[in-house]
Amino acid sequence: MSHMIIDFLADYFQNIENYPVRSQVNPGYLLESLPDHAPMQPESIETILKDVHRNIIPGITHWQSPNFFAHFASSGSTASFIVVMEWLSKLLQLPKSFSFSSDSGGGVLHSTTCEAFVCTLLAAKEKILDQIGRDYAEKLVVYCSDQTHFSFQKSVKIVGINPKNIRHVLTSKSTNFQLSPQSLDEMIKRDVEVGLVPMYLCATVGTTSTTAVDPLGPLTEVASAYNMWVHVDAAYAGSACICPEFRHFLNGIEGASSFSFNAHIWLLTNLACCCLWVKDKYVLTKPLTTNSEYLKNKATDSGHVVDYKDADIITRVKPRSKLWMLLRSYGATDTSMWFVSEFVPIGKKYDYDPEANEFNEKLLESVNATGCAYMTHSVVGGVYFIRFAVGATLTEDRHVAMAWELVKNQATSMLYTPTPKL
Amino acid sequence: MSHMIIDFLADYFQNIENYPVRSQVNPGYLLESLPDHAPMQPESIETILKDVHRNIIPGITHWQSPNFFAHFASSGSTASFIVVMEWLSKLLQLPKSFSFSSDSGGGVLHSTTCEAFVCTLLAAKEKILDQIGRDYAEKLVVYCSDQTHFSFQKSVKIVGINPKNIRHVLTSKSTNFQLSPQSLDEMIKRDVEVGLVPMYLCATVGTTSTTAVDPLGPLTEVASAYNMWVHVDAAYAGSACICPEFRHFLNGIEGASSFSFNAHIWLLTNLACCCLWVKDKYVLTKPLTTNSEYLKNKATDSGHVVDYKDADIITRVKPRSKLWMLLRSYGATDTSMWFVSEFVPIGKKYDYDPEANEFNEKLLESVNATGCAYMTHSVVGGVYFIRFAVGATLTEDRHVAMAWELVKNQATSMLYTPTPKL
Repeated sequence: MSHMIIDFLADYFQNIENYPVRSQVNPGYLLESLPDHAPMQPESIETILKDVHRNIIPGITHWQSPNFFAHFASSGSTASFIVVMEWLSKLLQLPKSFSFSSDSGGGVLHSTTCEAFVCTLLAAKEKILDQIGRDYAEKLVVYCSDQTHFSFQKSVKIVGINPKNIRHVLTSKSTNFQLSPQSLDEMIKRDVEVGLVPMYLCATVGTTSTTAVDPLGPLTEVASAYNMWVHVDAAYAGSACICPEFRHFLNGIEGASSFSFNAHIWLLTNLACCCLWVKDKYVLTKPLTTNSEYLKNKATDSGHVVDYKDADIITRVKPRSKLWMLLRSYGATDTSMWFVSEFVPIGKKYDYDPEANEFNEKLLESVNATGCAYMTHSVVGGVYFIRFAVGATLTEDRHVAMAWELVKNQATSMLYTPTPKL
Repeated sequence: MSHMIIDFLADYFQNIENYPVRSQVNPGYLLESLPDHAPMQPESIETILKDVHRNIIPGITHWQSPNFFAHFASSGSTASFIVVMEWLSKLLQLPKSFSFSSDSGGGVLHSTTCEAFVCTLLAAKEKILDQIGRDYAEKLVVYCSDQTHFSFQKSVKIVGINPKNIRHVLTSKSTNFQLSPQSLDEMIKRDVEVGLVPMYLCATVGTTSTTAVDPLGPLTEVASAYNMWVHVDAAYAGSACICPEFRHFLNGIEGASSFSFNAHIWLLTNLACCCLWVKDKYVLTKPLTTNSEYLKNKATDSGHVVDYKDADIITRVKPRSKLWMLLRSYGATDTSMWFVSEFVPIGKKYDYDPEANEFNEKLLESVNATGCAYMTHSVVGGVYFIRFAVGATLTEDRHVAMAWELVKNQATSMLYTPTPKL
């Protein structure tokens, strides 16, 4: 397949002077010529490349053409962003309010969750400051749990929220490290009492350490009482929710303002590809919109196109057609079948024991030093544990079984080998 | 070459289980095994792939291995960031203070200039607020010219600078649309008088509209009197400064705090690849540094590695080995020879004429509608002009000559064809 793609690209470059340099199509033409849902079964690379030739190439402005003297020279294509986002939104059964077919919803492909955090934080911030005035900028408060991915804190710093106003709701093993709506509500009340302004809640579907799933329904209810933005970060587990049997982890998503997951973790896509949907794309793009004489063009003026540079930190569209190729090459059925055996949100018991912690730390190092497998660790509720994340494309049952044997063998040999006295 | 790379990758995936999953090398090993400057002549793909096999693969943690159960499953490699940045810094003759071999300098590969702006703005902001206190957050002022790329304004909004405090110094045709140090100084003085705090200046080498080059020496002198951060944005023209005959456009760079250029515009690299150097990498990474139990590792604890996630908005390293492949495949001589005939900073005369403006706007549309070439426009000093940017990899002299014929023919036919009376 790769060789066929290389030949296709070589042909394209050979013939590039034969194409009209500037795209000849009208905004929206691709939506009409491509199917409105992802194929359920895999399609052949021949079929896909034929479609690229017939449907995608006519929509391309040929940045690589020797007759391209516009903007800056460069490379990139915008092939079917909207199509892919709509396909995925259907696969995930997202509420219609997040879809381009609604009044104001829509999606955009970012690189990583950091960008989704930064853009939604910025949208929430500008929206609220527009209402209450910029004097309150230092009083805005954001909420997450102590299990939220560390990039959230980084993003909060980037958009200039007062670092004193990041609240981490503590979780505990009694609730499987989920964010508690009651604790959140109490925390918000205390902040409001001292004159602070609650702005944004980050809820997680599938935390990094333990794949905990925060209860979206009750959390969005609490947040809506304070008119807060709720972002649902499903970076890790979102892909699994394509499977009907796991879709219930997204229950309550209709109360959220935005939702994102990373196709590069579990959806067979290469780095980096974070899918973000919002209910209000105008609020999202407002703080990111800039314009300049040299970017003025008829398509933008017509209002019929989405300028993706206004929905992202960067100002160039990234080539993300890989997601479209993926969904076609595998088909929705194969893409999602793949998860069934992997996704088990944990409900284990944890007990704190300093000796066990130390032992497990050494055990992990000894497992990794063999070179036969690689695992990492985390600490929750004081317990150091080996974090075993199954997700590599090539992993089969036998690799998981072998890894478990490896852990047991290393543990046995550590327990029964006397420490050498040097 | 592409077919050879595909075969190399196919072999790699076939044999992936034979490699130790976690990287077995020590921090710094690559610096020792690779040459300390870019090759002057092209190298064959066989040689490069042999080096990848011998030097790069042993340094890789094999994220695609079926025995990878750490972090999240994904794909990516960090091949030779530092090596490439040092190679480029030598080709550009950057001052040693920007190099990893100095006490605190260094470079990082970002996607686009927006990220370089955001990260350096954030660094400058945190540095100054640490000194004078967070109460001054709303009083910080940033400076640029009316020719600065629009993504600067966007970045300023992202990091939460008060939107009232972005100053665009007006330029004029009498100084070729360069940022005037005198005007800057006067503007800063006025701000200081009313209690504002000058924080950051963005100077440009090669503006988007006219490739104007701001005078770095005098500008950094003004800025240093106010203890400001100076960023030099050479996104467009930076690559050309590799040629000795254009290096003088970077004179004065030693007074700047940071410098960036986009390898994806003129240095044959695919989107997106912005190279950023700073004099103080600790100030750069401080506001972006986050940590988390599951990321703790011996290499980071040793202090011998650069954690690139702390020098970027996103938290995952992007695969940027393409720049290394490029410099080896073409060699420094070929890579830079390529620019000589292209880079001509403008010194033309502009005269404002509303009829000419209207004519040129129609002319541009008629040129682009032919599909034979694609150009864009800009407006400076009230003059609408066709902006002809030569830079596509495949462009030869004949394409430029043909484009000029096309413009002349369209203009002639517009001038001498009577407007149809419908």
